[in-house]
Amino acid sequence: MDPDEHAIRNVIENWARATTAGDLPELMNMMADDAIFLSPGQEPMDRDNFVAGFSAAMEHMRIEARSEVQEIEVDGDLAYCWNYLDVQITPRTAGASTRRFGHTLTIFHRRNGAWVIARDANLLASGV
Amino acid sequence: MDPDEHAIRNVIENWARATTAGDLPELMNMMADDAIFLSPGQEPMDRDNFVAGFSAAMEHMRIEARSEVQEIEVDGDLAYCWNYLDVQITPRTAGASTRRFGHTLTIFHRRNGAWVIARDANLLASGV
Repeated sequence: MDPDEHAIRNVIENWARATTAGDLPELMNMMADDAIFLSPGQEPMDRDNFVAGFSAAMEHMRIEARSEVQEIEVDGDLAYCWNYLDVQITPRTAGASTRRFGHTLTIFHRRNGAWVIARDANLLASGV
Repeated sequence: MDPDEHAIRNVIENWARATTAGDLPELMNMMADDAIFLSPGQEPMDRDNFVAGFSAAMEHMRIEARSEVQEIEVDGDLAYCWNYLDVQITPRTAGASTRRFGHTLTIFHRRNGAWVIARDANLLASGV
């Protein structure tokens, strides 16, 4: 496998692991300073919005994501990944789990030799 | 403006114009052979799915899109555009218009010197 594709797959796996662990510093290491997260019907989230939203979510829930990378393409210091995610969200106290699944399209930048998430379009929808 | 960014902005404007005009051959010229269109809660659409869906839609409605490009970045033969779209959908016979608005994240490839749409994540939601 191409070393850049391999490195990007590692970021994706590590992102899922850090999300489940609630490891915000690790997530921030994998994010560009100017990262933007886009979701349907929502305002774009920057890095600060992400940190606030993730911290609030972690108080109440555990998030487990399974990903199936569809495609990674790299050109120079720019790359994208089309991914399929299946996410289980479990309340920390009481209540039923919910599931969200669907596709993501993510832009990666190479910064100081490391691939980081720069733009993310999250197309996940609720489902059972 | 960078000539590649200029060329990509032209594709985006031309795409909106061809959509309103129902000009499918022109849309197909601006699409990679392996283009994929992603929307929330939907299966990915390839070129053939797009053609079928667009043709069916054009029988019943007129689509007018206003776009506000947020960002274009190019590296080699790969580029992305983060765009904001405000789309008005008007039935050709009777009935009220509907509006959809939100962000898109689109991957462009340079093919034989021309920029074409390769992957598109459409985050538009219904609204008034």
